[in-house]
Amino acid sequence: MAQTGRAAADLRVDGSRLWERIEALGEIGQVLGPNGERGCARLALTDADRDGRDLVVSWMLDLGLQVTVDAIGNVVGTRPGSDPQAAPVMTGSHIDTVRTGGRFDGNLGVLAGLEVIETLEQHGITTLRPIAVGFFTDEEGARFAPDMLGSLVYVGGLAVEEALDIVAVDDGATVGEELARIGYAGSTPCPAAVVPHAFVELHIEQGPVLEDEGIAIGVVTGVQGISWTELTIVGQSAHAGTTPMGMRHDPGYAAAAIIVAARELALRFGAGQVATVGRCEFTPDLVNVVPSEVLLTLDLRNSDDAVLQRAEVELRGICNDVAAAEGVTLGRRTLARFEPVEFDAGMIELVESTAAQLGLSSRRMPSGAGHDAQMLSRVCPTSMIFVPSVGGLSHNIAELTERADIEAGANVLLHTLLATATTP
Amino acid sequence: MAQTGRAAADLRVDGSRLWERIEALGEIGQVLGPNGERGCARLALTDADRDGRDLVVSWMLDLGLQVTVDAIGNVVGTRPGSDPQAAPVMTGSHIDTVRTGGRFDGNLGVLAGLEVIETLEQHGITTLRPIAVGFFTDEEGARFAPDMLGSLVYVGGLAVEEALDIVAVDDGATVGEELARIGYAGSTPCPAAVVPHAFVELHIEQGPVLEDEGIAIGVVTGVQGISWTELTIVGQSAHAGTTPMGMRHDPGYAAAAIIVAARELALRFGAGQVATVGRCEFTPDLVNVVPSEVLLTLDLRNSDDAVLQRAEVELRGICNDVAAAEGVTLGRRTLARFEPVEFDAGMIELVESTAAQLGLSSRRMPSGAGHDAQMLSRVCPTSMIFVPSVGGLSHNIAELTERADIEAGANVLLHTLLATATTP
Repeated sequence: MAQTGRAAADLRVDGSRLWERIEALGEIGQVLGPNGERGCARLALTDADRDGRDLVVSWMLDLGLQVTVDAIGNVVGTRPGSDPQAAPVMTGSHIDTVRTGGRFDGNLGVLAGLEVIETLEQHGITTLRPIAVGFFTDEEGARFAPDMLGSLVYVGGLAVEEALDIVAVDDGATVGEELARIGYAGSTPCPAAVVPHAFVELHIEQGPVLEDEGIAIGVVTGVQGISWTELTIVGQSAHAGTTPMGMRHDPGYAAAAIIVAARELALRFGAGQVATVGRCEFTPDLVNVVPSEVLLTLDLRNSDDAVLQRAEVELRGICNDVAAAEGVTLGRRTLARFEPVEFDAGMIELVESTAAQLGLSSRRMPSGAGHDAQMLSRVCPTSMIFVPSVGGLSHNIAELTERADIEAGANVLLHTLLATATTP
Repeated sequence: MAQTGRAAADLRVDGSRLWERIEALGEIGQVLGPNGERGCARLALTDADRDGRDLVVSWMLDLGLQVTVDAIGNVVGTRPGSDPQAAPVMTGSHIDTVRTGGRFDGNLGVLAGLEVIETLEQHGITTLRPIAVGFFTDEEGARFAPDMLGSLVYVGGLAVEEALDIVAVDDGATVGEELARIGYAGSTPCPAAVVPHAFVELHIEQGPVLEDEGIAIGVVTGVQGISWTELTIVGQSAHAGTTPMGMRHDPGYAAAAIIVAARELALRFGAGQVATVGRCEFTPDLVNVVPSEVLLTLDLRNSDDAVLQRAEVELRGICNDVAAAEGVTLGRRTLARFEPVEFDAGMIELVESTAAQLGLSSRRMPSGAGHDAQMLSRVCPTSMIFVPSVGGLSHNIAELTERADIEAGANVLLHTLLATATTP
C-alpha cells in the first residue's frame, strides 16, 4: 500500500544511477565528434536500436517489471499497483535517435521512468495504480515516416497493418520486416487494450529558453501547430552580365524577399509565432546566371491555431505579391499541417505544483517539437516536463543537459507519477 | 587592288551561305532539347571541338586562306592584302561552347568572318591590308579556367607554358595534352609575332536589350568590369520549432537580406549597374532546421570602374551590418575582379557609321559578358558588333538569332573590315 506524507514527500531519485544508465545506453550506436562530443546514431529498427532495446528490456526485467512488446514494437514495462482493476499511470518516450543525435533526446524520458520505478522499489513504496514505462517505436521518423509512428499506432491513430508496410528511406526495408529481423515484432495487440489513466513524459527542451531564463523546469502546456509549405518559384534564367535589372524575373530575389517577409511576419505576430526557411535551393546555382528556379520551404508554428491560420493566410498573400511584382510563378505544396495540441489542465497544474513543492523554478511553455506525449494526449490526460538543453542544441551530437537538471526533472517526474498513481 | 565607290558600297554577304555554315557546324556536338531545340555541347579540346575545328579549317583552306595554328591552338586563316608589309585587319571569335550551349555564341563571329572573305573572293575585291579570321581556344572556360584563355595567351597576357599546364575540370587532362591529342598543338609562336592593325568581332548580344528595343545592331563600347565575391555566412543551427525568433542567428535570413539589398543597390545605382546572386546554398538544408551555414555569390558589373568600386564598398558595408545585426559571421573570398574594358573610339565610330550607311538601327552598349575582343583590345584598336538574341537567351540550347539579324550583322562586319583594310 502507498506510503504517504513526510516520507514520500522527501523521496528523491538517485541522480548518479540515472546518469549511469544514460551513459550506458549512449554507448550503443555512439558517434564521436571532432571535439570529443559523444553523440548517437541509433536509427529506428537498426541493429543499434535492437541492442539499445535489449539493454533497456534487461533493466526492466531486473526491476521485476512485466514487459510487453506490441505489434508495432512498442515496449512497455509495468510495475503492478495495489488495485488490480486500476488503469496504469504511464510515462516513457523513445530510444531511437536521428543520424546526428544526442544521448538525451527520448532516452532521458525512458530511463528516468526506470529510475522512478527503482526509487519506489528501493523505498518499498507501492502505489494504488500500476506505473508503466514505455518506449515507442520510430519517434524520430528519421528512417520511417511519419515520426511518432509507434505512439500514433499505440493510440489507434494509424492501423498497425498500414504501419508495418511503411518503407525505410535508407534501405527500402519495411517496418514489419525490420521488426521481425531485430526480434521486436511483439504479440500484444495494438492499439493498446488498456488506456492509461494518465501520461507524463520527461524530455529535454531542445531549445534555448529554459537555459536563457535560468529556469529548471518547463511545464509543457501543449505542442505547437505546424504548417510546412514547399514553394517552387519559377523565373527566367538569364545572363548576369547582359540582362538589365528591370528585365529580370529572378526567382532568387523573390525567394529572398519571401524569407525576409517571413521573419518580419513572425516578429509582428509576437512571441508565440515562429517562422523558418530551412531549405532553399537555387537552380542552376551558378555565379553568373540568374536562377531559373528556386525551391524553398516555409515552417510556421504557433500554439494557437487561429493565429497560425492567420499567419498562413498573410504569408500566402505576401508570397503572391512578391511573385507578381517579380514576374515569376509560384507552385505550392503542403508538406505537413498539424493542429496545435493542448495538454490536460489538471496534468499541467500537477506538474507545475510538483516543481514548486520541490523548490524548483518553472515556467509554462509550449513544445515547439513533436513528442509521443501528443499522441497519448488523444486518449488520456497528458502533460510533459522539460529540462534545459545547453545552448539549445538538439539533434546534434553535442546535445547536453546538465546532471543537476536531469536529476531535478526526474524528481518532478517521480512526484508527478506518485501523486497520480496514489489517487483513485 | 581595292575596288572602291558604288560597287563596294553595294556589296552584301550571302546570308544563306552563312546560315548553312552555322547549321553545318552546329551539327557537331549537337544536343537536342525536349521541344526540338538544337543546341551544342562542344567543350574546348574535346573530340567534338576537334571535329568542329577540322570543318572550319577545311572551309578556310577551300577559301585559299593561309592557315596557322599557334602553340595554344588558336587557328588563324589569312587572306593576303596588296601591301605585303601591312599588318592584317583581324576578325573572329571562338567555336567552343558550354555544355548547354547554342549554335551562335562564338560560332557566328568565326563563320561571318569566312563569309566576308568569300564575299570578297566572289566579287574579286582585294584589300590593301590582309584580312585574318581567327578562332581562339577555350573562350568559354567551361573546361579549362580561365575563360578567354586562347586570346589571353595570343596577346601575351599569360605565358603559353603556364597555359599548357592548366588542368581540365572534368577529366583532369591538361591543355597541352589535349591539344596534342586532337592535333592542334601548333608551331606558330604565341603571343603572335604580328600585332593586328585592328580587331572587330561579331557576336550575339546574349541579353534582351536589342530585341526589347527593336534595334538591329549593338555598337559595343567596351566590356563591363566584373566583381565576383563568395560569402560564407556562419550562424547557429537550431530547431525550427523550439528556438524563439529573438534567439536565432540565422545565416539564411542574413543571406536573404543581402540578396534584397543587392537588388536595391543595383536599382539605386541606375542603368549601368547590375547585381546578381546566382549561387545560394543552405546547410544542412532541412525544412525544420535553422541553417548553420549559407554560401552565396555576389556578381556586380559596371562599365565605370569608379562606380563599380563604390558599389562594392557599399554592399560590403551592408553585408557587415546585416551580419552584425543577426549575430552571424561573414567569410569573404574574391572569385574574380576584372576592370572594365573600353574599346577604341575610332573603331566604335566606324561600326556605328557602318550600320547607319547600311540603313540599320543601332545603339551603343557595353558588353555584360567577356569576349575575345577584350583581350585583343590590349594590343590593337578593337570594337564589337552585337546582334539580337531572341528572348535574351544564351548559354542555352534554345539560343537563337534570326537569319535577318545575322545577315545584317555580317554586312556590318563586312563593311567595317573593308573600310579598315582598304585604308593605310
